[in-house]
Amino acid sequence: MTTDPLVLFTPSGKRGHFPVGTPVLTAARQLGVDLDSVCGGRGICSKCQITPSYGEFPKHGVTVAEAALSEWNKVEQRYDDIRGLTKGRRLGCQALVQGDIVIDVPPESQVHRQVVRKRAEVRDITMNPSTRLYYVDVEHPDMHKPSGDLERLIEALETQWDLQDVKADLHILQSMQPVLRKGDWKVTVAVHLGDEIHPPTIMHIWPGFYDGSIYGLAIDLGSTTIAAHLCDLQTGDVVASSGIMNPQIRFGEDLMSRVSYSMMNKGGDQEMTQAVREGMNTLFAQVADEAEIDKALIVDAVFVCNPVMHHLFLGIDPFELGQAPFALTSSGALSLYAKELDLEIHPTARVYILPCIAGHVGADAAAVALSEAPDKSKDLMLVVDVGTNAEILLGNTNKVLACSSPTGPAFEGAQISSGQRAAPGAIERIEIDPQTKEPRFKVIGSDIWSNEDGFADAIATTGVTGICGSGIIEAIAEMRLAGLLDASGLIGSAEQTGTSRCIADGRTNSYVIWDGSEEGGPNITVTNPDIRAIQMAKAALYSGARLLMDKFGVDTVDKVILAGAFGAHISAKHAMVLGMIPDCPLEKVTSAGNAAGTGARIALLNTKARTEIEDTVRRIEKIETAVESRFQEHFVNASAIPNSTEPFPILNSIVSLPDVNFNTGGGDQPGGRKRRRRRE
Amino acid sequence: MTTDPLVLFTPSGKRGHFPVGTPVLTAARQLGVDLDSVCGGRGICSKCQITPSYGEFPKHGVTVAEAALSEWNKVEQRYDDIRGLTKGRRLGCQALVQGDIVIDVPPESQVHRQVVRKRAEVRDITMNPSTRLYYVDVEHPDMHKPSGDLERLIEALETQWDLQDVKADLHILQSMQPVLRKGDWKVTVAVHLGDEIHPPTIMHIWPGFYDGSIYGLAIDLGSTTIAAHLCDLQTGDVVASSGIMNPQIRFGEDLMSRVSYSMMNKGGDQEMTQAVREGMNTLFAQVADEAEIDKALIVDAVFVCNPVMHHLFLGIDPFELGQAPFALTSSGALSLYAKELDLEIHPTARVYILPCIAGHVGADAAAVALSEAPDKSKDLMLVVDVGTNAEILLGNTNKVLACSSPTGPAFEGAQISSGQRAAPGAIERIEIDPQTKEPRFKVIGSDIWSNEDGFADAIATTGVTGICGSGIIEAIAEMRLAGLLDASGLIGSAEQTGTSRCIADGRTNSYVIWDGSEEGGPNITVTNPDIRAIQMAKAALYSGARLLMDKFGVDTVDKVILAGAFGAHISAKHAMVLGMIPDCPLEKVTSAGNAAGTGARIALLNTKARTEIEDTVRRIEKIETAVESRFQEHFVNASAIPNSTEPFPILNSIVSLPDVNFNTGGGDQPGGRKRRRRRE
Repeated sequence: MTTDPLVLFTPSGKRGHFPVGTPVLTAARQLGVDLDSVCGGRGICSKCQITPSYGEFPKHGVTVAEAALSEWNKVEQRYDDIRGLTKGRRLGCQALVQGDIVIDVPPESQVHRQVVRKRAEVRDITMNPSTRLYYVDVEHPDMHKPSGDLERLIEALETQWDLQDVKADLHILQSMQPVLRKGDWKVTVAVHLGDEIHPPTIMHIWPGFYDGSIYGLAIDLGSTTIAAHLCDLQTGDVVASSGIMNPQIRFGEDLMSRVSYSMMNKGGDQEMTQAVREGMNTLFAQVADEAEIDKALIVDAVFVCNPVMHHLFLGIDPFELGQAPFALTSSGALSLYAKELDLEIHPTARVYILPCIAGHVGADAAAVALSEAPDKSKDLMLVVDVGTNAEILLGNTNKVLACSSPTGPAFEGAQISSGQRAAPGAIERIEIDPQTKEPRFKVIGSDIWSNEDGFADAIATTGVTGICGSGIIEAIAEMRLAGLLDASGLIGSAEQTGTSRCIADGRTNSYVIWDGSEEGGPNITVTNPDIRAIQMAKAALYSGARLLMDKFGVDTVDKVILAGAFGAHISAKHAMVLGMIPDCPLEKVTSAGNAAGTGARIALLNTKARTEIEDTVRRIEKIETAVESRFQEHFVNASAIPNSTEPFPILNSIVSLPDVNFNTGGGDQPGGRKRRRRRE
Repeated sequence: MTTDPLVLFTPSGKRGHFPVGTPVLTAARQLGVDLDSVCGGRGICSKCQITPSYGEFPKHGVTVAEAALSEWNKVEQRYDDIRGLTKGRRLGCQALVQGDIVIDVPPESQVHRQVVRKRAEVRDITMNPSTRLYYVDVEHPDMHKPSGDLERLIEALETQWDLQDVKADLHILQSMQPVLRKGDWKVTVAVHLGDEIHPPTIMHIWPGFYDGSIYGLAIDLGSTTIAAHLCDLQTGDVVASSGIMNPQIRFGEDLMSRVSYSMMNKGGDQEMTQAVREGMNTLFAQVADEAEIDKALIVDAVFVCNPVMHHLFLGIDPFELGQAPFALTSSGALSLYAKELDLEIHPTARVYILPCIAGHVGADAAAVALSEAPDKSKDLMLVVDVGTNAEILLGNTNKVLACSSPTGPAFEGAQISSGQRAAPGAIERIEIDPQTKEPRFKVIGSDIWSNEDGFADAIATTGVTGICGSGIIEAIAEMRLAGLLDASGLIGSAEQTGTSRCIADGRTNSYVIWDGSEEGGPNITVTNPDIRAIQMAKAALYSGARLLMDKFGVDTVDKVILAGAFGAHISAKHAMVLGMIPDCPLEKVTSAGNAAGTGARIALLNTKARTEIEDTVRRIEKIETAVESRFQEHFVNASAIPNSTEPFPILNSIVSLPDVNFNTGGGDQPGGRKRRRRRE
């Protein structure tokens, strides 16, 4: 029978008996307890901080005496003097077991710590980065046993860290000899732990103990903007975030115009590739500056993007994506080197690009799937990422379906007479009194309604310049609720609606939200063509979702998640009045923010998530809306506001939609028009 | 019981029963018979040619009827019309089994064919190149089952060729879509089959069936010359060979002076790296031109070189190799990309560099070990690669030892008063009449002895310009045999030797081989300092070999193999009279030519040989001569000609060495001098 002391770790609950004098770190390692260490127990890195607990633990059947651990030692004292050790903490490599003991491993001492996400409903990110730091003691060279310095370094990684078959990049070979000698054969190395394609590889080497960190980038490469999060690969913290406009915009606002540019201009695809890569380098320099780190410490980067951006970024002509059957060059995830893409970060930094789901459903949609995880949801979840193209996912633990739908740029304020990007001065919220038909609104940059005191002052610098995507949604929905607009999308005349804000505008009518003439600004109106543009966009979105519901065999969904910047600002009620999204309890419609960017961050921080999303994507059932006849049918029905056939019972229990009809027999009806040519 | 016809393949002897109508290629594949095919049985590539045999085969118990195979078909006829099919041959994919049949697979139809080496005593090279060609039929894209073009290509390689988990280089992604469409979804791809580090990877893609080949380079990167063999990776043929001077010569003739250059000049190592890489590209362009192929078809390259060249080529400062403990950056084999080394061949061509044995025994010595295979020899084999540094291997199937010894450049004609490189006009053979003490000789470029008619005409254009390495060996050995030179290395005076060709030269004597004054050319003499230089060089060589024999516990070896250009021209008898190599039957002393280059070619053509030599090198026991006191002792003894202590019984049974002594008590004795400072 053993009389060795019991060591019990929380929160894991792992326990075992160890001889008196065993360092806590050693006990943790032997039990497989997740306790961090970079220096391997040499009292240098202080990553293995633990909190011993004393007293009675009836639950565990343990009593911990005051002397259960060795006394505070010189190494700990030195560390405390210089850096300060949180009260109650010990260094796991210095504290030796003397008696039965309960040890708590605080989150920040765990290798696979959880990075907490802001939204309560989603899972935290488990730290499992591609690259980690290891401090090693390398054998000196010996003429009698000749072996290369690299071979002895690799041996040290194997014996001291149990890393098998490690390789080294050429630049390490070129630089390691002086570093080993400068560090007196003690060095810290950054090891990329390998993936399906690459073996574990030494990427960086520092003499002695390196006290800094290494970094990775999560990049959401959009058609309009490129956003990057710079993350600390040890802690998972976002240390800087920045965004730039996609420099390809000068070749075409939307994706199809960029595809056309490359078709019309020889070498046009290469110009665009170069532009986006240069933009990327500007952005990377920007985030590195912001975080005050050397760009060469960025060793990993994860990209998500739509298929056209995917091809243009990789240097592939997107020609085939512009025509049926929309064949991707490669749909799989890609592991590359940053330098293959001309990215100026660490010389052998790795790049991971998430898989594409289909020719119109890109790696950005895969990233949304990773972030929102419909495949792990018991509830049937509809995830909509709204951009100039909407990617739609519908699924639960049984299966996940995906499609894309060509919404066009109307939701981003384009093709709208008073439309503009979401920027200060843009109307983003609007209410119309159903009785007076008078509007009130808020603009970006101010929290005061237009009919409240102080509004004039609040907008003094910005003015009221236009209406952004979420503003136009609310405006049209409010018009419908106020009886200014009928189900077919026609605005009534002043006569029909009883308000002088409805003005004749050619053969149709417009509704004046803001008369800017007095302030010298523009008039902000909603015109019938604006309504049409939004009708087209929302019909495309809804009919994509509805098609997936058909394929799934359901008429309702349990949850709707709106992803993307647009989704973050949209009002669920107004979206439903418009018939953008299926009928659903309002509290079940939530916004996920930049879910694609979050997906990129998850894949950056947790390499297991990469294999996971690759598997998920392989299992996702792809639906091509272009060849589904029911899509056309749904589109026609969804052109009405909210819908000409769907009942929307939950919506109707909340609001009542006036039964108006402003069709005077003339003019074409939006619902009857042919579906527009497919856009990206 | 089966009544299906028997199909028997020679030379493998593999046999099996197959239904009537089975193509011979299919039968071969199912039996695992090594029968080549690039097109996969589509009657395009004609690689699967076989020779059916008819009649009685009592040994196999088979009778083959005339109608045992289907009749000559249209595909075969077309091929015969265009290209001509050797009489008696059929295409294995077209000829269908009709009855019992014996099929011979000719060598050129085998994938793993043997590349015959010229020397009878060594093994042929088994073809097993890194990269092979595959013709595939790729599924068309389908909107309903969206997958990338690459994924369908990879699937075709898996289903049609059983290649698993194939990846593609980025440049393939960038170029494949138009190629697939141009070939109407039929393409030929070159697939690198992967290695320890890399997965199988598509390197090149051609529309339709590609009728050409792909190539590899075997490069012996020497301090003085760089030699390249361009090989066809399908047949193993050397299609072009070329060599250039190492452009680093301008930084220093020998390796140590290059190491010094890099120590004395900041960035000097980088200059030398750039120089050798540029030279490499010149050389590659040269061989590609000679073979009339596109450089981009060179997909693989194998390099062998000494440790200093290894480091300089890789871009590693060779500083540490210039001082004890002579630590290599990496001793292991390296798999890299050609572009990492600025080599302008295929954009993702691979590079393999053989492992180094020790700080002074490089990848060139490993290549010699691969070519000569002492580890596979039952006889105890001494392999000596003579250059400015001699690499020495001693071993048999039990074990192999290795060392290097600093012979210096004397064997290459440097430091010899009349010395020159082996070039037309240089004396390469010499005989001295023991009675008359008169010499006769041959110069490079002529086969007439200097005392024969027509010699004057033969040398009219070249003259007699000097004496090359093998010439000086013979001259000194012949002088010793003729009694003109004593065992200590002193040349006798005219008086002591009785010939006026021995002339006073300062405090010592010289022997005049050729009086060039009449022809206006130089006098060719052997001086006492020449003797000293050769004594030093041969003593270094011998004592290295002798040290290995000590370590092995033997006093004799069974075989001596002289590798390198110098070894190819050396006379075994004269080398032994000089005491360069251990006593051994003369017929057991053979030349291996450029064994390092051959080793590179083996590793290029047979990737299994790479793993093999890596294992062998790991098992080779390295001896560092610099720290072995017995090396000094052997060196002192070996300074005598042939040796002051070793008996050389076999040599003495063939020749008799005059017992002369020209020591007059003055002057220093070569045997008594301190060993020279170690050189590379």
